[in-house]
Amino acid sequence: MGVPGAIQSIERAAAILRLLASSSGKLGMGEISRSLELAKGTTHGILRTLQQVGFVEQDTASGRYQLGAALLHLGSSYLDVNELRSRSINWADPLASRSGEAVRIGTVLDGKVLVVHHVFRPDDTFQTLDVGSLLPLHATALGKVLLAWDAAAAIVAVRGELTAFTRKTVTKSGLGRALATVRESGWAAEAGEYHPEEAGIAAPIRGHGGLVVGAIGISGPTERVCDARGRPDPTLIGYVRDAARAISRDLGGLRT
Amino acid sequence: MGVPGAIQSIERAAAILRLLASSSGKLGMGEISRSLELAKGTTHGILRTLQQVGFVEQDTASGRYQLGAALLHLGSSYLDVNELRSRSINWADPLASRSGEAVRIGTVLDGKVLVVHHVFRPDDTFQTLDVGSLLPLHATALGKVLLAWDAAAAIVAVRGELTAFTRKTVTKSGLGRALATVRESGWAAEAGEYHPEEAGIAAPIRGHGGLVVGAIGISGPTERVCDARGRPDPTLIGYVRDAARAISRDLGGLRT
Repeated sequence: MGVPGAIQSIERAAAILRLLASSSGKLGMGEISRSLELAKGTTHGILRTLQQVGFVEQDTASGRYQLGAALLHLGSSYLDVNELRSRSINWADPLASRSGEAVRIGTVLDGKVLVVHHVFRPDDTFQTLDVGSLLPLHATALGKVLLAWDAAAAIVAVRGELTAFTRKTVTKSGLGRALATVRESGWAAEAGEYHPEEAGIAAPIRGHGGLVVGAIGISGPTERVCDARGRPDPTLIGYVRDAARAISRDLGGLRT
Repeated sequence: MGVPGAIQSIERAAAILRLLASSSGKLGMGEISRSLELAKGTTHGILRTLQQVGFVEQDTASGRYQLGAALLHLGSSYLDVNELRSRSINWADPLASRSGEAVRIGTVLDGKVLVVHHVFRPDDTFQTLDVGSLLPLHATALGKVLLAWDAAAAIVAVRGELTAFTRKTVTKSGLGRALATVRESGWAAEAGEYHPEEAGIAAPIRGHGGLVVGAIGISGPTERVCDARGRPDPTLIGYVRDAARAISRDLGGLRT
């Protein structure tokens, strides 16, 4: 907050919305004021305006605040015009069929992977749609790809705390090396670094001018994605890279 | 805009986001300024702030603006804490199985039906996820239910223009009568009023205190949802009403 020329009340409104999104549930005005170090009167004025435009709802019984319905529509409108997603959809389904695993497409948001598309693993198991959710950059194959080609995000990641989700999650010292390998090979993998028994493979999607604008990847049980020594299956790597290249070509990110 | 005590810059920022959502694509600064009757300097300051918080993105090639990725995350966070949706999920799947049709759950947003949950028709046809999209109130079964128990929305609807999607779409004079019938019977139907060959049945979901907070409904080809005379199938009506009652009970909206 506090970038010169930015409008403070809009920055504060955005901070309140992000706070409500990160706290899984409803917050009282006091909690919001304290968390953001704002005067209660200021918080109240912003909340009232956010409520009036439908970005925030107030629970009538408890008086607590939560995100509003207008945001759901804005979020789905974002998806409708998102070129990365619209170009990826046609390639994500075949990748799920060929690999037999779940497919996700992600982009960087606030130091996380934002999932913009998700195709379920083609079987009958219960799966929850992940679109709109955030995954860690350092512990997922999608995230490693995004970090490898986003210098700014990589610097922030290396400086910050890297949450150890499992005993295999990459550490600060290992991350730089890992990203160099990703840049060299053109793909990233992860085995048991986020969920103990799951692995993933991802590759970069390039947009106009060749810039990496997203990543596509598969994930599933480690024993299916990797061989007995824990190395990712070369056939699956090929499938993922093929899909990434096809989307990049559609986006004008490849010369060929 | 312009409600006393509301913060003008936040109202304007929300108006810009809504404008970007309603225009399917990207807008230039001039178009945004003109549409909202704002000075270019004002528009520029708001857009810059919105861009900085991730609510807006600027296309590097064209300089045009579109909705930003942060909104997708806020929208999915809204769904995560939305009680109507979380309570409905368990009943929507069985309703789709029993009826063999697609199921949607909706609530009112800005004079439209906002779809908060969508279960595909249980067959292998290609279907697109509708969550976050807006449907007309007067031309859908979900919308008629919501209008029937939302006096404010009904007044706005009757005063405004009712878009005729087909030759069967209800007209201004017919809407009041139709809503009275819905209130009396406890459910609503629609046949060919939105899409020529589709029909729907919906029933109200009641929240705390018995207030109607949403609607659940099925939709599908008219020949499956209705009989030869175009009357909705009583068995399907029963399924929809059962599901609506079950959700209302979970939400504390029924005494029984």
